[in-house]
Parts: sequence; structure tokens; C-alpha cells
Amino acid sequence: MSNVKSDIEIAQECKMQPITEVAKNFGLSEDELELYGKYKAKVSFEAIKRLENEKDGKLVLVTAISPTPAGEGKSTTTIGLGQALNKIGKKTFIALREPSLGPVFGVKGGAAGGGYAQVVPMEDINLHFTGDMHAITAANNLLSAAIDNHINHGNTLRIDSRQIVWKRVLDMNDRALRNVVVGLGGKACGFTRQDGFMITVASEVMAILCLASDLMDLKERLGKIVVAYNLDGDPVTAKDINVHGAMAMLLKEAIKPNIVQTLENTPALIHGGPFANIAHGCNSLIATKLGLKLGDILVTEAGFGADLGAEKFLDIKCRYGKLKPDAVVIVATIRALKMHGGVKKTDLGAENLDALDKGFANLKKQVENMRKFGLPVLVGINRFINDTQAEIDLLTKKCQEFGVEVSLNDCWAKGGEGGIEMAEKLVKILENEQSNYKPLYDENLSVADKLNTIVKEIYGADGVIIEAEAKKQIKKLEEIGLDKLPICMAKTQFSFTDDPSVMGAPTGFKITIKDVRVSAGAGFIVCQTSNIMVMPGLPKVPAAEKMDIDENGVITGLF
Amino acid sequence: MSNVKSDIEIAQECKMQPITEVAKNFGLSEDELELYGKYKAKVSFEAIKRLENEKDGKLVLVTAISPTPAGEGKSTTTIGLGQALNKIGKKTFIALREPSLGPVFGVKGGAAGGGYAQVVPMEDINLHFTGDMHAITAANNLLSAAIDNHINHGNTLRIDSRQIVWKRVLDMNDRALRNVVVGLGGKACGFTRQDGFMITVASEVMAILCLASDLMDLKERLGKIVVAYNLDGDPVTAKDINVHGAMAMLLKEAIKPNIVQTLENTPALIHGGPFANIAHGCNSLIATKLGLKLGDILVTEAGFGADLGAEKFLDIKCRYGKLKPDAVVIVATIRALKMHGGVKKTDLGAENLDALDKGFANLKKQVENMRKFGLPVLVGINRFINDTQAEIDLLTKKCQEFGVEVSLNDCWAKGGEGGIEMAEKLVKILENEQSNYKPLYDENLSVADKLNTIVKEIYGADGVIIEAEAKKQIKKLEEIGLDKLPICMAKTQFSFTDDPSVMGAPTGFKITIKDVRVSAGAGFIVCQTSNIMVMPGLPKVPAAEKMDIDENGVITGLF
Repeated sequence: MSNVKSDIEIAQECKMQPITEVAKNFGLSEDELELYGKYKAKVSFEAIKRLENEKDGKLVLVTAISPTPAGEGKSTTTIGLGQALNKIGKKTFIALREPSLGPVFGVKGGAAGGGYAQVVPMEDINLHFTGDMHAITAANNLLSAAIDNHINHGNTLRIDSRQIVWKRVLDMNDRALRNVVVGLGGKACGFTRQDGFMITVASEVMAILCLASDLMDLKERLGKIVVAYNLDGDPVTAKDINVHGAMAMLLKEAIKPNIVQTLENTPALIHGGPFANIAHGCNSLIATKLGLKLGDILVTEAGFGADLGAEKFLDIKCRYGKLKPDAVVIVATIRALKMHGGVKKTDLGAENLDALDKGFANLKKQVENMRKFGLPVLVGINRFINDTQAEIDLLTKKCQEFGVEVSLNDCWAKGGEGGIEMAEKLVKILENEQSNYKPLYDENLSVADKLNTIVKEIYGADGVIIEAEAKKQIKKLEEIGLDKLPICMAKTQFSFTDDPSVMGAPTGFKITIKDVRVSAGAGFIVCQTSNIMVMPGLPKVPAAEKMDIDENGVITGLF
Repeated sequence: MSNVKSDIEIAQECKMQPITEVAKNFGLSEDELELYGKYKAKVSFEAIKRLENEKDGKLVLVTAISPTPAGEGKSTTTIGLGQALNKIGKKTFIALREPSLGPVFGVKGGAAGGGYAQVVPMEDINLHFTGDMHAITAANNLLSAAIDNHINHGNTLRIDSRQIVWKRVLDMNDRALRNVVVGLGGKACGFTRQDGFMITVASEVMAILCLASDLMDLKERLGKIVVAYNLDGDPVTAKDINVHGAMAMLLKEAIKPNIVQTLENTPALIHGGPFANIAHGCNSLIATKLGLKLGDILVTEAGFGADLGAEKFLDIKCRYGKLKPDAVVIVATIRALKMHGGVKKTDLGAENLDALDKGFANLKKQVENMRKFGLPVLVGINRFINDTQAEIDLLTKKCQEFGVEVSLNDCWAKGGEGGIEMAEKLVKILENEQSNYKPLYDENLSVADKLNTIVKEIYGADGVIIEAEAKKQIKKLEEIGLDKLPICMAKTQFSFTDDPSVMGAPTGFKITIKDVRVSAGAGFIVCQTSNIMVMPGLPKVPAAEKMDIDENGVITGLF
């Protein structure tokens, strides 16, 4: 694999079409776009309104086995599949999450696919894009400033400054801001208290933007955010602070979906990117719904593996959006399955049929899980150059024995061309198999019952252990009437258990819940198995140090 | 004055032209614009390059008397004058500063002019506009994160954490962030230290963006920023931290000037908005230079009164940009002059010829000051409904006696039509009077000599008192070779003295310098007479509480 071009080199060589052309092919007029340069645009509310009563296309979710350090290539497969579907004549839209600026400067990486399955203009998408992240940062921090300002000017709401749960955010990896003390400096600077910053994508404002059905729903949800508790223990909301209108105003452009294209001019909606642990990890509902109106097929993805990402997509996003997915593609690589079978990353170069055989258990369990939601499944194997024929044959045989359709693809190396077989198999499923989608649980069950359903059905656990502090938190939610919401699990993505080192598909374990919080605006209850890091740090040599721009505006070192 | 429409009502009624049309009339093709929707655009580097060798138009600076609570209307006059000049057949461009989001939520106000002399789309300009502020926030905070990250990972530069002068920023009025402690939480969260946040416009990154001649100059200046001192007392720069390339990359769009239009379709470049105290308070050099290429006349403004804003425009911006201004318009109102003559704000309704006569001293001194730079001057009186004929006659007579041309205008009420006489008088000055512009002082003088020149010549003081701490700071600058830079005075804008309550044109006082810091990237030495507030707070009922947006995206309460 020498002389392989880097992602940014491939992206910079791409001959993009004006985004007006790309959109026109799918029925969006130039007047319905708000351009950000020639290759990015937002789709207007008017267009969304015009399409309201159009027929929906088919909804396909791309998800994956439990992630491993070997890499699975979910975004690459999503983009490649979209390109391939268009190649075989199916008008297909793609919907993805927006990348966050923080990780871009940390370790090499972004969220624009890879190889010949990328979305472009890659630099813009990975930097400020159309400003959505910045608008979310501003809305979040306006609320923060207003809370401290309310306390400073007399605190008529009697906010308990020990119980302010709303944090400030920045779209930056900045560990020094994880725990801070604010309000130092005496009377002119307000009351001193402990606080902390999260990365912007962890803001509930981001989760709300991704679940809102329209601007008014967005405003209502913003108003419901619980920002603190007062001295009686009652919740104080953003509506009490009275800046939810100004917050919605700040988000008036951010709520409109962004349209760009892939390297093969397939249209892609890239909109919203909530954390996949303390939030639900999918692109915006508005973008997904728009894509369904514009394409015969919409291909979208969810964060992490199917047990976490797809479960939340199906139990949170589809529930709120009244979406009915038609099929699921589960992405895996032979390398990753071998890791699930016990092989170390350094030994992945060698053929290992035993490990593949053993690691298949993780894939099998993820397929079974998707079927519990009533969904047809296709396994999409992202091919690597070191995969041996014997390994490919074994994996194919095991899928056949288990009774799930499987397809290998080369989208990374060949773009849409490399995914044609996968696209054809998917179309066959969409035409012949019926989706009987239903959420896993009734949200009106108790929190404990909802948790037990998820951990038993999806993780294969024997049940849930709820620690004392979490029990108190659940009781509080019951008291204030916020317990009848879907669950948003915040658990390691690397294992079905709550221990990241346990791979494959283990049995005979329980899941321990340590912390329960409500995101009342987003509309879910976050249940954490451990302390989730909501503000990343930079490594010793941040990727930022290798980045540069020359006099012609050409960027290097971004990827 | 009943039934007067609000600024936002007037702005929302405006029939805007597509910005491509507005730009085309001034010789910019559609291909040279990067659109942000239909009514905002950035001008491409290619256009700037194409125009490089074109002839420059005339440069007109709009400045004012020392500001008072009565209001002077400098932006309104600048916009109205630009409209009027186009009305009388002079192809005129306007260049203004970008508003900051923070003050928008604090007290009612923005920076888009007023009445029938506004720039539009007003909502967008006052909210996220084209994302420049957000890009500056990100670049500033990347550097902050990288500094703490460097210390966390071993601190090979031996940064003295007691002497980190680089602060984090947010574009928000948030007093609780003025003084903070960061890095709490133990080993995983870095080393604990004191820090503080400024509002984004106070960032040196903003000053640099406004003084850079191009992208490479921007990068070089970013590298020169002094972020801290090491344990030997030597300066540590952004280049040492090695993220100046990534910062420049983050600013690659922000450095391109934004073009919008006035209510009468006059083109306006709105780009950059540095603080007028700890920075120089003018729009970007790139925008000013571009406007000079595109218009026969470019009208621009500077922050605060002429003693502070125009002095910095002439001694910092024009020096670095090799600009040669052709004339100055000094804005005043009869109300404000009466305040300078001792009238209280509540008594401004009544005619008071004595106070006007006395307050004229402030205007006279500002005119004299501008002539010290070799510049022809026009006094532009922004007419108010309560001004009496006797007051108007007195003011006109005093200007004639003093030998300065004066013109009253009605731009606020009538737009360009209300400024035609002012425009005609200005054109006459431009055609008949010679500008002999030169900066006030040689930047190679000592800091004390430069300070004495400014306070004696411009403020009318007897000299400068440099406190012990400031003397030490100056000595340090001499040691590290950063003393041969222009001075950026940070002083109250309400008085020629360093006491905001002293109005008019006092004599027999000295100016006390308490703090001296270098902005080595921007290229000036900030000399403060007192502690300057770099992070505003919100009032008891912030303007944000009255803001809202409806289901059609229509904003209320913004102004």
C-alpha cells in the first residue's frame, strides 16, 4: 500500500460541482438554498415546508460491531454505499454528523469519511463549516452567563449555586477547563462557585437541535432545559431564566440542514453532531426527514457500535421523529472481528481463522439485536488489503449459516464502484423484506425497567445494578415527573459490558449505573456507568502543530 | 416624534438588492464573491489581487467629539454620508467595524447605524454574520489550550505559570469569567493556575486580523504574540508554542472582507472590530484598502472620539497600512456639545446658548488635533428635533469664526437625502484642499517621549506621569527590543483627561500611566491609565430577555 494518497490529497483533487447543481438534480431549486460559498449551502425552511407532504424514501441505517482500535470505517461505508446506490440508478441522499473542531486539533482525524468515499469540501467541513457549532456554543454560553447574572442581581429564583448543572462549553480540547472556579475578583465579578466546561458537542443544546422537529419545537425544548435546582430542590429551567427565545434566535440558521457533496457528487446532508455517550449520537432529525423527501433512499449512520448507537437511533431519534427505518447495514472488518476474537493489534497482519471464528460472536449479537427492533439486516464488510481468501470464505460461510446476507466492499479504495455489490444486495432487501420496526421498550415504564430491558436484550447482561446515588437521582426524577422519557445510555463503546477490555459477546455479567441525569429539553434520561469525559485533552504533540496554510490558502497537515 | 419606527422595523422593510448586484455596480464579479446567503458575501483573495495595482480613491475618516451620554451618531453619519455621496454621483464605499455578540444581549444596541442610515441585513450583521468573531474566538482559545497543554506535558519552554499573559475569550458578556481558576481536578486536568476570560473583540487576534496586510502577514504576526514569560523572564511567543499555522488556518475565511449594503444599496465592507481601548478600534486594513480600490471615495470610522479613535487610526492603522487620509469629518450634536458645556442629560430639552458656547471647546480642540496630522476637516452636525434655530445659528457662527467648514445633516431621519449638503461640502474639500498627512510621532522615540507627545499635543495635558510598575514594564520592553512600536492609549473616552467626569477641553492636568503591555503581534504598546474592563457584564434585565423569534423566523426585540 505504498504511494497511497492521503485523504486531504484526494479531497483537494476532487472536481466538485456547484452545490446548486447537485441540489437541482434532487429537486431543490437555487432559491431554496442559502449558499455558503459555491460548495456548501443551507436548505431553507421554505423548501422543507414545500416537501412536507411528499412521499418518504427508504431509510437505511449504517451501524457497526463494537468498535476496536483496528477501525471499522462506518462513515466511509455510509458514503461509499450512497455513492454506489446512485451508480446503480437509485436516487440516494446521505445524512451524516458534523465534525467537532476540538478533536481535529487533537489527534489526526475528522468525520468526513476516507479514501474515495469522502464528503467535500473536506477542509471547510472539518473547520468552521457553516457555523453551527459556534452558534450552539453561543446559545449554551448565553444561558450560562444569564444564570450567573441572575444570581448576581439578587437571585429571585433562589438558585442553589451548589446545584447548577448547566455547564459552559467551548469547541476545543482543553483539559484545563474541565474543572474551574468562576466568579473570583470580588463584588464586580459575581458570586464565586465551582463550574466546568464541556466540549460543545456535549451540550444539551446540540442534542436538542438534533431532535427538534422545527424552530418552534426547538424553542420549546430549549425552555425545558433543567439548568439548576433551587434551595427547595425544585428544578430551575431555561424558561425561568427567560433566555430561551434569544437562544432560539441564535440558532435560527444552525437549525437549517447543510448540504454538500461526496467525491462522486452524491448529495449529503451534514447536520448536527451530538456526543454518542451523554447524548444520542445521530445527525439531526430535520436533515434525516429532509433526505427522506429528496431521495428514494436515505443512508444515515449512528455513533459507536449497534448496541449503543443504533439502539439510541431506534429508541430515541426514531421514536421522537416517528421514523420507520427499512433496513440496517452493520459494518465490520475482518481485522476488527479478529480483535474481538482475542488477537492483539500488532498481530493483525497474520491470518487467524480461529480468532475470526470466535470474534464473529460480536457481529452475530449485533445482528440479533437489530432484528429485535424488527429490522432487516445486511452485513457490510469493509475490505482490507491483508484479508486472506480463507478468512473471507470463513466469514461468508458463518454469515450464511447464521442466515444474514453479507457483502464485501472496497469503497475506501474505489469509491462507489467498490460498493456496487453491497448496494445491489441492499436494494434486494429493501424490495423484498418487510421492516416491522418498533422501539425496544415503552418509555412509560419505570427507569429501572427500561434499563433492565436494554441491558438484558441488547447487551446480553443478566440485569442492572443501580447504585445508591443513582437511585436517589431516579427518585428525584419521579418526583418532578421527568422519569417517563427514553433512556440514553452512557457506557463504554468498546464492550457489551461496562468494562472496555471485555470484547466479543460475553454473558453472565451485570451493568452498574452510577449516575442518572435528565436532559429534559432533549427528552431523555442519561444513565452513566462511569464518569464520562465531556472535555477531551490534547496529546503531547497536538495535530495542530503540524497544520499550516500557505499564501494561496492551501491547507496542509489537516489530516 | 411619535410613530417613529424602530431601527429593526425600518431594516426589515428594506428592499435589499442581491449582494451580487450591489458588488457588480462597483466592478466585482459574482465569481469574486463567496456568498453567505443572498445578501452577505466575502470578497475573494483573487479579487483583492486583481485590484492591487488600481488607483486608490479618496480616504475619508469619520470621527467625533468626546462621546457623551447624549449620543453623537458616528456610525449613522458614516452610513448616511456614504449614501449621500452616491446620491450626488460619487461612487462611494463604506467601511465599518463588525458588531460583537456580547453587547447585543446586554443593553439595547448594535453597530449597524440607525434610522434611515443603516447597514442590512441588520439581524445577521448583529448576530453571527459570516462567523469572523467565532473564528477569532477559536484561534485565540486554541492558543490557550496549547499553552496549558504544553505545561501539562512537561513544560520544556519553562513557562512561568504566574506570568501567562494570554487569556481565553468568549463573545459574551459574562462577568463570572473575568477572574477564574483553571486546571482544577487533579493530574488528569493539568496544573492549577489563575486565568481570566476577555470578550472576543479584546483579543490580540482581532487586532492582528485588522492590521494584517494579507494571510502570510497575519500568520507572521500571530507567531509574534507574546503569550507568557519563562522562568528567566524571557518572552514566550505563539511561534514557540507552534500553533500559529493552525491559528492562521482557522482565520482563512475570517481575513476576507465582508460586503453588505446600506438601506439605499450603497456597498459597505464590514470587517473586524477590535476594542477601541486596549486595541486600535478600526475596521480591518484589508477592507479599507479594498474599498479604496473599488470606490472613488471610501468613508470609514474609528472608535470613540477623535483624541482616542482618530489618533490611533492615524498613528497605528495608517502608519502600518501606508494609508494617506484625504479628509476628516468630525461628528457632533448640539445636545452633546451642551453636555460638554455643563448641562445634565435631563436638561437637554431646553435651549442653552451659554452651554453650547462653552462646550464648543471640545469640538474646537478635536478639529485642531486633526489639523496637527495635516488633515482638512469638515464638522458634521447630526441634527436632533429639539435643536433650536438660535443654537444652530450660534454653532454655525462659532465654526465660521474658528475657520472650519460645518454642515448639518438629517441622515437618521432621511437617509442619504438628509446628508446631501454635507456630501457636497466634503467633495469640495476633497477637490480643493490638500492633505499633508503625517503621523504625530516617530515610533523610534522612547516610550516616554511618545507618550508625552500624545498627551501634550492631543489631550492638551502638561505631560505624563509614569508610575513605578509601568516604568518597570517599559524597561522590560526596552530589554527585549519591543519598545519601538506605536502607542495604543487605553484611557477613558469621555474626557481629554484620565478622569471621565471632566468634560469640555480642560488644561493644566497630567495623564497617569499605570500599566504598559506589548501586543507584539498587532504591533503596538498598550498604555493604560487605569484597569480597563475587558469582559463586560449583563445588566439586571439583559436585552436577551426581550428577544424572540417566531415560526417564520422573524426576530423581535433585537433592537
